[in-house]
This record gives sequence, C-alpha cells and structure tokens, in this order.
Amino acid sequence: MLKTSEGYEYTPSTGLRQGLPTAAVVSPPQLRVSTAQTYDVIVIGAGFAGIISARDLLAKGYKVLLIEARDRIGGRTWTTQTENGDYLDIGGTYIHWAQPHFWVELVRYGLKNEVKNCREYFQGSALPVTFLNGEKKTWEPHELHNLLEKCLQLYYNPDGERASDVVPLPHSPLSNIARAVHFDKMSAADRFSQLKGELNEVEIAMIEAFTMAMCGPPLEEASYFDLLQRWVLGGGTSEDYNARMVGYKLKRGQTSLLRAIFDEISSNPNLSWTFSTPVQSIDTSGLKVASVVAANGNVFHARKVICTIPLMVLRTIKFVPELPIPKAEAIASSRSNLTQKVHAVVDGKEWRSWTGVKFVNNGVTMMSGDPYSNSTTTTNLVVFTAGDGRVPRENPQEQLEVFQSMDPSLNVSRLVFGDFNNDPYARGSWCLFQPKYMTRYLSLLQCGVGNLKFASGDISDGWRGFIDGAIESATLVAKEVDGELKHERTGKL
Amino acid sequence: MLKTSEGYEYTPSTGLRQGLPTAAVVSPPQLRVSTAQTYDVIVIGAGFAGIISARDLLAKGYKVLLIEARDRIGGRTWTTQTENGDYLDIGGTYIHWAQPHFWVELVRYGLKNEVKNCREYFQGSALPVTFLNGEKKTWEPHELHNLLEKCLQLYYNPDGERASDVVPLPHSPLSNIARAVHFDKMSAADRFSQLKGELNEVEIAMIEAFTMAMCGPPLEEASYFDLLQRWVLGGGTSEDYNARMVGYKLKRGQTSLLRAIFDEISSNPNLSWTFSTPVQSIDTSGLKVASVVAANGNVFHARKVICTIPLMVLRTIKFVPELPIPKAEAIASSRSNLTQKVHAVVDGKEWRSWTGVKFVNNGVTMMSGDPYSNSTTTTNLVVFTAGDGRVPRENPQEQLEVFQSMDPSLNVSRLVFGDFNNDPYARGSWCLFQPKYMTRYLSLLQCGVGNLKFASGDISDGWRGFIDGAIESATLVAKEVDGELKHERTGKL
Repeated sequence: MLKTSEGYEYTPSTGLRQGLPTAAVVSPPQLRVSTAQTYDVIVIGAGFAGIISARDLLAKGYKVLLIEARDRIGGRTWTTQTENGDYLDIGGTYIHWAQPHFWVELVRYGLKNEVKNCREYFQGSALPVTFLNGEKKTWEPHELHNLLEKCLQLYYNPDGERASDVVPLPHSPLSNIARAVHFDKMSAADRFSQLKGELNEVEIAMIEAFTMAMCGPPLEEASYFDLLQRWVLGGGTSEDYNARMVGYKLKRGQTSLLRAIFDEISSNPNLSWTFSTPVQSIDTSGLKVASVVAANGNVFHARKVICTIPLMVLRTIKFVPELPIPKAEAIASSRSNLTQKVHAVVDGKEWRSWTGVKFVNNGVTMMSGDPYSNSTTTTNLVVFTAGDGRVPRENPQEQLEVFQSMDPSLNVSRLVFGDFNNDPYARGSWCLFQPKYMTRYLSLLQCGVGNLKFASGDISDGWRGFIDGAIESATLVAKEVDGELKHERTGKL
Repeated sequence: MLKTSEGYEYTPSTGLRQGLPTAAVVSPPQLRVSTAQTYDVIVIGAGFAGIISARDLLAKGYKVLLIEARDRIGGRTWTTQTENGDYLDIGGTYIHWAQPHFWVELVRYGLKNEVKNCREYFQGSALPVTFLNGEKKTWEPHELHNLLEKCLQLYYNPDGERASDVVPLPHSPLSNIARAVHFDKMSAADRFSQLKGELNEVEIAMIEAFTMAMCGPPLEEASYFDLLQRWVLGGGTSEDYNARMVGYKLKRGQTSLLRAIFDEISSNPNLSWTFSTPVQSIDTSGLKVASVVAANGNVFHARKVICTIPLMVLRTIKFVPELPIPKAEAIASSRSNLTQKVHAVVDGKEWRSWTGVKFVNNGVTMMSGDPYSNSTTTTNLVVFTAGDGRVPRENPQEQLEVFQSMDPSLNVSRLVFGDFNNDPYARGSWCLFQPKYMTRYLSLLQCGVGNLKFASGDISDGWRGFIDGAIESATLVAKEVDGELKHERTGKL
C-alpha cells in the first residue's frame, strides 16, 4: 500500500514518523492532463465534494479535470491501515443512515454490510470516568447517560421552546428565519450562562466538555443555532445524537467508499487528474473560458470551475475578478474549528467500551474505546482534544502522557494522528460556524459567481461539517453546472 | 390537465364519478416504441422503482423501453388536483429526511422547499376524539400523545429487549438474524396478547387501532418483526414515528417529484415507452434476448428485463421458464395489505389539526386533518380505514355516513379516493409482510433470475412499503444490470 506524505505515528521507542500507508493515494499522480485543452469542467479538490461532482458530470458525458493539492483523495477524510490490519480514520469517520446523501452512496457502492457499530458493548469494559470541575468520578454507564440526557435536553430546548420547533426542517435551517436569526445571535457559551441556575457546576462542565469537543474553542465563538440544527438532525435525544455523531463507521474506513467511487470513474476517458497540484488562483473573467493557475505555474482551462476547497482555505486563493464584497467578507471571516483527533493504542482490552472525559482550564480531552480491533492485547482509543493549545505533532510524548494521566492503569503505546489544524489545505477540522455567520452568509456561500461554483460540506444546508453535507452540496452544484452547460450547448444549435 | 381513468370522486349530489385529473398521465402514451428492436433493458412499471431504474440506466447510455399497464406514472403513488387547487395524494404520500433514498431525489430535483409539515398546529382546532372499546373520549392533545408513547414503548420493546437492539441496523433488517427469526415468528396480535396484563383494554384497543391502520387486517397476519423494523426506522418514539409516517408531504404531491424525474428523461432519445400496456408474460429463456409479451399480443425484446410489478401482482404474470420453486412460493404466498385511504372534504376549518380514531369490531377508521387548504371554508381530512370490509367505490354514501358518525358536527361534502385493493395492478396498498415471510423470503425476492431482475418498494431492505424502498431497490438493480451489460460488452471485445 502506498504512503501519503501526511499523518503521523508516534511511539516512545521509534519517535515521530511522518507519512502513513493509505489506499487513498492515487497513482499515477497525473493522468491525461493537459494545459492545452479546454475541459468542460475543472473540479478543484478530490474530497467527497470534488469526486461526487466529478462523477455526476462525467455521467453526463462532460470532460472533467480534477485538481488536488494533496497526493491522495479524501481531503479531511482518509483512512490508514495499521500493521495488524486495523483501519483508522484520520479525519471524518462516523456515519449514520440519518445522513441521506451519504447513506445512498454507501448503499449504491455495496458497503451497507460494512457498517460497524462502535457502541456495541465490550463485556468486561472499564467504567466511564470524568474529570470535571476538578473532581474525578467513575460512573455506571446508565448514570452518565441519564445525566447527559437531562443536561442536553435543557441545553437544547431554550426557554421552553423545543429544538424541533426552532428548526422544524433541519435540512432547510433558515426556513424558520425569525427564530434562526434569534438563536444565531447566541453563542454556545451564552446558552451555558442561561443555565447557571438550573444546572450545577459539574453538570455545566459536562456539557461544556461535550460541546467543546464538537465546536472547538472558544465556546464564545460557536453559534448556538448551528449547534441547535445539529441537535435536531441528530435526533433530539442524547442517545440518538450520540448514535449519529459517533455511533457507526465503515469497517475499512471512509477511504473504502471514496476509493470505490474514484475507481468507478477513473477508467472513464473523459476524466483527467493531477494530484499534488495546489491551486493558486482562479480566473473566471473570460466570458467562455475560465483558467485555474497551479502553484507550479501550470494553467488549466475549462468552461466551468467547481471549487471544493475548504471554506477556511478559500482565503488563500486569488480570485480574478475579485469575489463580490459580501462573499469575500464571508470567506475572510470564516471560523476554524480547532478540534484535534488522535488515535491512541493502549494495552489491554478493558478499554474497548470505555469513555474518559476531562475538562480542565477550558481544555477538553474525550477518549472512547473502539469495540473492535484485530489485536488481541490492545485497544484503539479515539481521542478528541480541543482548547488546551497542544499540537500532538510538536510534542507527541507530552500528548501521550496527557492521555495516560486519564487513568493510572492506562498505558498508551502508540499515537496515530493527522494535523488538519496546521495543514494549509484544511486549516481546521470540521466546520462549525460562529454566531451570526449562518444567517448572514450561508446562502451567499452557496451561490456561484458566473462560471465559478462552490461545493463543500462546509457550506451545505443539512449536515454541514459532515460528509453528507459535502455530497449534498456537490450533487446540487453538479446539477447546476450540467444545466448551464446544456443550455449553452443548446444555445449554439 | 389530463385525467387518468383511475380514482373516484363522490358527492351526494353528483354521485360517483370515475377518473381524476393528474399531472401523472403521460401523453403521448406511446413513444419510439418498436417490437422489432432489441432494447438494452425493458423496465416494466412506471412507478418510482421503474422510473428510477430507467433513469439510472439511461444515464449509462443504454436504450430503455418502459412498459406500464396504467395510463400514468406513479403506480401506487399519484396526485390529483382539486378544483380549488389543493393537491391530494391518492396513494403514497408522506415523506421524511430519515428516508435517505427519497430525500436525495427530492434535493436533487429542487423540491426541498416544497416540504409541508402536516403536523403544524391549526389554531382553534377541535380536540382529538377516540371511540375505543365502545367508549367515546375527547382528549387534550398531550394526553393522547403521552398515552400513545407509553403504549407504543411497551409494545415495541418486547420482554425488556429494546427495539433498537433487536434491529440494530434497520436498513439491514436481517443482520441480527437470530432475533429477527425469533420475532418474525410472532404476529402483531401475538404481541398484543403478551400485553394483556400490562395495558388496560382501552390502551390495547388504541394501539390495535394504530397498528391495524399500518398493517391492514387481520393483525394475526402481520409480522411483529416487520413492524419492529418500521418502528426502529421510525425513530423509536411515538413522536418520531408519527413524524416519519404521517408528518410531512410534498406541497404538490408525489407526482410533482416523479414527474420532474420523468420529464428529465423523457427527452432522452434512448428512452421509449408504452403506457396502457399490461404485461402478460416474461420470457427470459433465451440466452441473450428476453421477451415481454403484452396483453394485446405485442412482443418486446431486450437483453435485460427489470420487473417492478408489485409483489402482490407478480402472481398474475407468466414467467418462462418458471421461476425457481421457492421464489414462486414467495410470490404465491405474498400478503395483501388491505388498508384503504380516502380523502374527505368537510365543512369548517376547525378540523385542520383534528384527529379521530374509531376501532370497532376489528375495523379501524383513522381521520386526521390537513392543516393546509386553499379553501377558506373546508378542511381536507385524510382517512385510513381497514378491517370493516367496506369498499368506498361500492357504496360511497354509506362510507360518507360512517365518516360523519365520528362526530355529530362533522359534515362531509366530498370523498376522493383510489381503489388499490381491487386494482389488478396493485392488489393492495403498501407492503407489510406476514409472520415468517421476511426471514424466509426477503433475500430471495431481491435476487434476479438470469436476465430478469426485480425491483420494488415491496422487496427493499429498508423502508419496505415506502417510496424510499422503491428507490433503494431500483438503484441497486440498475447498478447490477449496468454491471452485467458492461461485462457482456467487454466480453465481446
């Protein structure tokens, strides 16, 4: 299996190694690519949004050039395989049949029987542990569940309004616009302040921890309304939400699905691609032909450009002509979610259904065991950290010790992780907007500008920040581009 | 707007009239159809399953002939428009974003903003009424809701097992096969017997009524496991279930979506069609070319045949060669769900959020008001009836009076309905299996036999009996056929 240049593995004995094996690497990195040709469509980005839009347009018979900065497909979602055969998703991982666009692709590509229930209970698991408000506590699982349910119901049903009344159509978040505007003014932290009388300090700390792991720090900069939408999409109970957020994954990881889609289109002679080709500027000033300039100076031409570059990275791209001012503002002010995901391999199997949550000085560490592993002696923990300012790549041994401090009997032997927060092609993890951003900018972000269109899970209506949103966005943009190209063609006849 | 020959309208003054206006009628009824040509694929049936498989195969460049017995698209899902502009779905109606295959099509065809919340509360609505166990009772809405929640939770979490543990992956209903086999042996009625000690007679009657409206009579012939799967897909609470079963619909009805899909493909020169063309037999004994014989004697040829004929109607088709014995058995023993849907127009707007449920002598009448109508003086009630042996077409005045008897101030001025139960191309409403049927036959029903494939919402894995299931099934079969045709083509090279 080929190695991408990305991703890190750390053990105390071998130290930090960069680059991980993954089926996401594409070889050859260039195919049928030409600066002389005018393609029908250039798709920038080979994550889910890019590959789905390329696929849909290839199916309509168009010539598509796919340009990707990395050496692999998947963007913020890719899977490495460990020596013992375990699949670890470095970025986006979790899936659910409540995510319609994703689920349909999974069914279509025959992976429905590769869905793994991460919540399956491992007999003999250690009990959940929390460090909240300076206090360590061990829980019976149902106790923790009941408390979470109570706290989250309070948090997400503001002032007697039900979340599902505030967001009655969660795939059209702005349909109930007056309430959307009202709650989009509030931050996640604002809502916590309102609950100070109703919940005690440990309870507040508990949901602050869970919320921080979703939003990244600081809670003052996360929109309460964006969280509300997610809660309603997530089913509106702690259990449903948990099932949709971290409940299920693909046995062979996200790369298994995206690779299946890419393999399907890769034999299509109308598809060209160039990997390891960062884009510098996009020029759509020409009436009929747009051009995309790569960092290496190559210039590619097409009638339409679909830009699936992550929202946080758009600010690094030069657009000619300049984007309309409000759109440029939206891009310039987009918020980075600095949550960090780390896989930690630990000795023993008793951690396979274990949860450990620590929330200290506004920094959260949330660990949960994967019930499955090919290893008979270790457990793969998935860890989300945020707010403590640590960058695992910079001091992996310190990071390992922080994890180990969660429980005296926890022995961490290995860390595997990406570094999306410091990655020039990601600049953060999944998308979660700041207050007033969605109501002000979402529709604008979705709009194309002439022959330039935008698609991304960062700007979808439903399941924003998820693969489902990326596919939704790509589906609509591909359809729009097809409509325009067809119309132009018909116009000529 | 053209009229289909189907559907009925009744008022006491005009009597019964057959045939309703609908955008589902296709004109011309025949296009580019030829008995001399060998098509790549013949698709039998122009409901959702047929049109989606035709679309997917046309997108791959195949020549497709669509054969439909009726004069319209939609099968058991079609929409008529009344004189005041209201859209009434005669068959399948309700939609939800938890139905992934359906939702993706809705987004793709730009209808996401045409979703109507049927549960929106109409101010000034009359209170819900039940007639259960010989007793009439008026409810506060939350009382009824709480009682239903209590009863349904008991009914669907058998013997301390949680429904979601019995059916952990509701889109793969047989994945937890041991529990599936166990509960598939039970009927809906068996489960009621188990609850006799835990619920009182009114409570039992209440959920019997709701279950009967879902299964059709008798409850002894409905699989408890099929209901369990539906409950888990439905979200596992009374409120979620209600939202998914009868919560939302399309403003312009199901025909608005299917028509959009059909319009998209109808300009494709690779599509031929013939409506009003019932099929008599399907002969796939030839190694390379299959033939489909219409009732009028015309014979059509294709390399592959996709049969989307409803499960209950397959027994009227002659297959050459005969189907494998277990598959023929499955078809011969399939169960008809005889639930009947009727639209009743009633005077006054106070019925727009009203519910009336009557369960007498194992016959159920369940009425609920649509919060929307273009009329300023009337309400459209949707009524489901089952188990009372009445056929509205045979004695519409009697049917009207039965409805009216639900409340002394209810004045029914008009009935609009189909007659799927006595329709040779439906032979029942939506699919709900009898005990032991799913575990024994479902996979078998999904299997093709040589060049003959089957697709239908009656045989899908998830959301069986729903449009979502029809699309799931069609997506997979179209992909299978594409794979085979591609392989045969490559084999020749």
